[in-house]
Amino acid sequence: MATLSDDERAIVTGGNLAHFTTLQRDGMPQTTPVWIDLHPDGHILVNTAEGRAKLKHVRRDPRVAISVSSRESDFRAVWLRGRVVETTHDGAEDHIHAMAKRYLGQDRYPFLQPGEQRVLIHIAPEKIESMIM
Amino acid sequence: MATLSDDERAIVTGGNLAHFTTLQRDGMPQTTPVWIDLHPDGHILVNTAEGRAKLKHVRRDPRVAISVSSRESDFRAVWLRGRVVETTHDGAEDHIHAMAKRYLGQDRYPFLQPGEQRVLIHIAPEKIESMIM
Repeated sequence: MATLSDDERAIVTGGNLAHFTTLQRDGMPQTTPVWIDLHPDGHILVNTAEGRAKLKHVRRDPRVAISVSSRESDFRAVWLRGRVVETTHDGAEDHIHAMAKRYLGQDRYPFLQPGEQRVLIHIAPEKIESMIM
Repeated sequence: MATLSDDERAIVTGGNLAHFTTLQRDGMPQTTPVWIDLHPDGHILVNTAEGRAKLKHVRRDPRVAISVSSRESDFRAVWLRGRVVETTHDGAEDHIHAMAKRYLGQDRYPFLQPGEQRVLIHIAPEKIESMIM
């Protein structure tokens, strides 16, 4: 598993919007804007919900990519390829509230639907690249 | 070919950093930050150079995805899947200077290398999605 440098970690955990790529059944890529986080074990975390296309995709094919740039400068960016190693409900709802705090400055995630089951996608980075200017 | 709405077009042509996904030989996705533009014929344009991995990828497998959000709001975003229909040197160097004007406010692209051959990738969108809040 590849490890982020300090500069790269700051971009990943800095409340910067990320763009997350999963693969359809036919191999066609889908890239969508997401919030991201970094687990202490080095996994990148994406918080999604049961029923979403991206979750179906990664349960079928674990290969993913992420690209994220800093809001301060387009020339501070990280992109990586990796594999989903786990999808879990454990802690996922608490986590989406923590992400709402980071990304929106709100104590609770305001878009939670009744009955929605949040899911944490754990990604092990395999190849990390960055531009740090 | 799918067509952008007025709101979507404003995001694509608004100097917002995009994230561009191509496929490696083995089908693994690669997503990297890029500048994008819209051709009058509705194709999305990505300006790259000979020798870059993304160009090799799309010449082998034309399936790509793009995700771009507005600098003003994470909730103004467009993401699309499509196919590369052309890669051409025609106009590519003039175009990278125009993009430098849009993205950097500079009359000339400051990173051009001696001998570098710029290439315009033309993408026909097949499925366009967006969030316009």
